[in-house]
Amino acid sequence: MATTAEAEAMRRAIALAARGLGHTSPNPVVGCVILDADGRTAGEGWHQRAGGPHAEVHALRAAGERARGGTAVVTLEPCNHTGRTGPCAQALQDAGIVRVVYAVADPNAKAAGGAAALAAAGTAVESGLLADQAAAVNEAWLTSMRFGRPFVLWKYAATLDGRSAAADGTSRWITSAESRADVHRLRAESDAVVVGSGTLRADDPHLAVRGASGSGASGASSGSNGVRQPLRVVLDSKATIAPDARVLDGTAPTLIAVAEDAPAVRLAGAETVRLPRATSGPGLDIPALLGELHGRGIRSVLLEGGPTLAGAFLAARAVDKVVGYLAPALLGAGAPALADAGITTITQALRLELTDVTRLGPDLRITAVPAPTAPVAPEES
Amino acid sequence: MATTAEAEAMRRAIALAARGLGHTSPNPVVGCVILDADGRTAGEGWHQRAGGPHAEVHALRAAGERARGGTAVVTLEPCNHTGRTGPCAQALQDAGIVRVVYAVADPNAKAAGGAAALAAAGTAVESGLLADQAAAVNEAWLTSMRFGRPFVLWKYAATLDGRSAAADGTSRWITSAESRADVHRLRAESDAVVVGSGTLRADDPHLAVRGASGSGASGASSGSNGVRQPLRVVLDSKATIAPDARVLDGTAPTLIAVAEDAPAVRLAGAETVRLPRATSGPGLDIPALLGELHGRGIRSVLLEGGPTLAGAFLAARAVDKVVGYLAPALLGAGAPALADAGITTITQALRLELTDVTRLGPDLRITAVPAPTAPVAPEES
Ligand SMILES: NC(=O)c1ccc[n+]([C@@H]2O[C@H](COP(=O)([O-])OP(=O)(O)OC[C@H]3O[C@@H](n4cnc5c(N)ncnc54)[C@H](OP(=O)(O)O)[C@@H]3O)[C@@H](O)[C@H]2O)c1
Ligand SMILES: NC(=O)c1ccc[n+]([C@@H]2O[C@H](COP(=O)([O-])OP(=O)(O)OC[C@H]3O[C@@H](n4cnc5c(N)ncnc54)[C@H](OP(=O)(O)O)[C@@H]3O)[C@@H](O)[C@H]2O)c1
Repeated sequence: MATTAEAEAMRRAIALAARGLGHTSPNPVVGCVILDADGRTAGEGWHQRAGGPHAEVHALRAAGERARGGTAVVTLEPCNHTGRTGPCAQALQDAGIVRVVYAVADPNAKAAGGAAALAAAGTAVESGLLADQAAAVNEAWLTSMRFGRPFVLWKYAATLDGRSAAADGTSRWITSAESRADVHRLRAESDAVVVGSGTLRADDPHLAVRGASGSGASGASSGSNGVRQPLRVVLDSKATIAPDARVLDGTAPTLIAVAEDAPAVRLAGAETVRLPRATSGPGLDIPALLGELHGRGIRSVLLEGGPTLAGAFLAARAVDKVVGYLAPALLGAGAPALADAGITTITQALRLELTDVTRLGPDLRITAVPAPTAPVAPEES
Repeated sequence: MATTAEAEAMRRAIALAARGLGHTSPNPVVGCVILDADGRTAGEGWHQRAGGPHAEVHALRAAGERARGGTAVVTLEPCNHTGRTGPCAQALQDAGIVRVVYAVADPNAKAAGGAAALAAAGTAVESGLLADQAAAVNEAWLTSMRFGRPFVLWKYAATLDGRSAAADGTSRWITSAESRADVHRLRAESDAVVVGSGTLRADDPHLAVRGASGSGASGASSGSNGVRQPLRVVLDSKATIAPDARVLDGTAPTLIAVAEDAPAVRLAGAETVRLPRATSGPGLDIPALLGELHGRGIRSVLLEGGPTLAGAFLAARAVDKVVGYLAPALLGAGAPALADAGITTITQALRLELTDVTRLGPDLRITAVPAPTAPVAPEES
């Protein structure tokens, strides 16, 4: 049984882990607190960026000699894998840790086994403490491990009647400054931001995180100020992007996905990738896109729209979470927040579960995840 | 200054007033608590139905001799008008009440003046205690007094993307049993329920409150079990209603509004009224409808749709409150919750303010009221 001090330390470790969001892919976010032999906090740490030391190493360094005879409280099972850093299981033993409490088992075949190795070496090991909260902070990475594709969060902004623009196409600003700032937070926590060519043409969006700078390199990049820019991804099968589009300004890395049969393109400020066309419907194959991004180490994708692309992602069952910013306004006409998702009758509706409802200034932010598929009732005989 | 006991009594009086919702029109809902000379509760009462004793009379009866030297705490200014019951201001004096604390002044010219009469007779009078909460419980009546038309609450049910039916027209059940039960509560608190001919044809709705019985008389009716049925109103300018429509079943009174030039109709189970056509757009004139209902003593209207009629009410600025039941589901196609409301560009969007957000089972209930009109910025010269 974990002690009260250990539960307290786990809560803290989860908060520390969250600081890594958007910076650690393809790695998970991890937080660690070292308690000394008397149960007092001796050191803290979190995994700050891919390639940097693991959370346990940071925390052990901070604890120094006080780690001896102490307990390591960590959000994810310590690794047993010698990669860019040595195995954490070994480091914990070397520092004299006698007990390890972790929340979530590591599903990653290469790194897993830390718990068994620690136990075999005589360290007391306990798992599952605050596992749900710890899994929530790592949902993107855990989902990408399970499905072999990035976690996809679809974000939309709409009026209470589900419109994302007025009849004449105007849409600035449906939602409030508070909501727009929250979208920047989502972007900062994502490895990539995805839009379709329709949104590109209509809005010429910038898609960078405000106040952050990018290296212009391929893949998500860390600016010198430590604020990382997500990879900007545009799905543009016919390669129609204008050379002066704002996503090509070099503020952040950009990837333009075009069809295999698209005309040749050469764009300053962006990389181009050729993808197969969707097997049914317009545009590019969504699983192929996600495979491409996964291969680049992208673990979390913020799908910013528009309605057509969102419909295609939903039809492909490639949305893991929905965040809707609802403005308390009514339009009665104009583009809907969501277009065709292949649903024709009410029993096919994509059912979700609300996981959070928060007021943001005048607006409402609704967070939901796909509901577990309802069990199919046995047919009457 | 009101005492703590008086504030406590006012909270109680507001809760008592709410019990009258749906039963008192054309009168307000009112609650009253009598405190004895020592500040202890001596009697309680509320206005239970139009034509019945006022709240003060019920409370004074319950208090008996303990009212002498005591305080009356009442949600609305006591009346000074001899109608079906004598003036309450007089009744309070006769019972020996020495102090009256009320929340909201009576805007009704005929009944107002109770406070002045009491003060003139030497009773201490204080107003404004918990005025906002007391006004909220009486919003329908207060609104109808201000505008000379019934208070209109537009209710809709939709998915997160604002659809109220799937592409093939199916819509049962978008929202949950909890939400549907809540709609029955709204109906029970309303004097009339209004739908358009489109909803009538598509859904053949019953529109009665479950478990209640009606007298079949014109206007909202009280069944013998005390549960009152709202008046069912259908806007059907061309008088196309089928004789076997469920609203004609006699469970509750029904009014069919047709155009002045509509074919002659004779329906068992409903009254027919002829109204002018809308000056612009299809259907009947909304202000004329509301005037007709107001003349029948209707103070609160639940507008149940559909999207076309709701758009017309919104365009006529005849919606005082919006209650949306949002199901955590996505459709991507199908009828929108709201159709044309005459809005073509984003700056014309009908801005609301959220006043309540409540989870109802899996759904979300959003309550909002029209935002105060933003001050027009002076033009640059
Ligand atoms: N309220 C919001 O949250 C929000 C967010 C974003 C955008 N918007 C609005 O949405 C509007 C644009 O909407 P939209 O629907 O035209 O644009 P969209 O969804 O951004 O783009 C659709 C286009 O993406 C391309 N595409 C590539 N692969 C696809 C696939 N598998 N499935 C579907 N499309 C694919 C297709 O064009 P190609 O054939 O050329 O590849 C398709 O026409 C703008 O007015 C914008 O303001 C609103
Ligand atoms: N989700 C929800 O909350 C909800 C609620 C109700 C209905 N619905 C759905 O809505 C659909 C029906 O929608 P609808 O838009 O066709 O029906 P509707 O709004 O109920 O009815 C529209 C009709 O009402 C008549 N009307 C009379 N005066 C009017 C006026 N001033 N302005 C506009 N219309 C006036 C007109 O027909 P005449 O010319 O014949 O008079 C008009 O065509 C159904 O599928 C139903 O299931 C959904």
